[in-house]
Amino acid sequence: VNLLLLEPAELSAEGHAILSDDRARHVIEVLRAKIGSELRVGRVGGPIGSARVESIEAGTITLACRFGDRTPPIPAVDLLLALPRPKVLARLWAQIAALGVGKVVLTNANKVERYYFDSHAVSPEHARHRLLEGLAQARDTRVPEVVVVKELKPFVEDELDAAFGDARRLIADAAYARSPIDAVRARKGRVVLAVGPEGGWSDYERDLLERQGFVGVGLGPRTLRSDTAVIALLGIVHEALR
Amino acid sequence: VNLLLLEPAELSAEGHAILSDDRARHVIEVLRAKIGSELRVGRVGGPIGSARVESIEAGTITLACRFGDRTPPIPAVDLLLALPRPKVLARLWAQIAALGVGKVVLTNANKVERYYFDSHAVSPEHARHRLLEGLAQARDTRVPEVVVVKELKPFVEDELDAAFGDARRLIADAAYARSPIDAVRARKGRVVLAVGPEGGWSDYERDLLERQGFVGVGLGPRTLRSDTAVIALLGIVHEALR
Repeated sequence: VNLLLLEPAELSAEGHAILSDDRARHVIEVLRAKIGSELRVGRVGGPIGSARVESIEAGTITLACRFGDRTPPIPAVDLLLALPRPKVLARLWAQIAALGVGKVVLTNANKVERYYFDSHAVSPEHARHRLLEGLAQARDTRVPEVVVVKELKPFVEDELDAAFGDARRLIADAAYARSPIDAVRARKGRVVLAVGPEGGWSDYERDLLERQGFVGVGLGPRTLRSDTAVIALLGIVHEALR
Repeated sequence: VNLLLLEPAELSAEGHAILSDDRARHVIEVLRAKIGSELRVGRVGGPIGSARVESIEAGTITLACRFGDRTPPIPAVDLLLALPRPKVLARLWAQIAALGVGKVVLTNANKVERYYFDSHAVSPEHARHRLLEGLAQARDTRVPEVVVVKELKPFVEDELDAAFGDARRLIADAAYARSPIDAVRARKGRVVLAVGPEGGWSDYERDLLERQGFVGVGLGPRTLRSDTAVIALLGIVHEALR
């Protein structure tokens, strides 16, 4: 944990917070904070700041926080992601948040099994918990917005503009040869990246996305697991945008 | 599994193989192969080919394999990786192999705990098993070479040339601003990428590596978990080399 994240509701008007959960345990046992120690804190959705440990007692800590003016910017990359297997998704949340994503739209696709949508890994509580873990790692406070879409076609045909604005649209698939570095550098600005399921987008889905302006990119001949592909692609797009 | 990998010792002179392990189960239950089905196979360390299922009986399959001439090239990226926590390393092997790495040197570093070296995740059997999983995913047959180094300094001072030849030397750390895309594109050819532990390389270690020609690169202000960083960096370097 490189940043201790506090929910706005946990902060008093004077900037005091009382914690007795995992975060308190982390501060006491891992960071070995004492009374008077200074910690880096962030207000979820808001600015970064610092906190002084005011008291430590029976696993409960009191913090006095001062926040700066600057809220981290919303990351410049969004994801349209075919819903991964629950086990893969559970592992992916924190990594997505750490790499930096503005919005994640999880969608059905031909090779997505229907039961994935009922898994615990998709639940807002689970997702938020894991996303905060990734933000704490990366020292960010902006929780990615998560949207779940059960039908790809109406979403792609009617809701893309509302969801992603004028972000440059890229679809990643083994069917395409163009490097995402070149596609991103051809026109800077926000990017939305469509990443298919294990086994790739279907011909129909690629066609559907291409007709709405998605430009195909690929990572070469090696077939990657969808979590590996998402992490590599987010790394590449962020670097190409820097 | 996109490629069924067979060890050379499992193949008769005529190219027959008899399997009754996880691979046989995968062929029967997941691929639902019948007698006469054709499968994509690879000889570990050798060429790709195809196999005809000759018999299926009580969980045992017999394959008749024909291999082409072409062995996949050794990937153009090597890793000098501060030994990750056992749980992280266990998850990383398959992803490293899938993304493509020629050689992995796992090393001690200031922020690496000594007990990591005793873990099951570092054992050659475990590593090979997981590496083959990643190769089967990516349709490759070249098992990355794995070397474990318990002291960083003598290795860096005396053994770099023997280990990595004239590969371009890059060190990744939050201390550096330069993008790996630009560093790689400045001079094409093999790359060796030094990735530090959770918490980064120490000042001493960065200095040691810089004195041996490692050029610093970074992924921006976000601090990543070491497995996330390795996957993102491998993706970026491979794309920049393409």
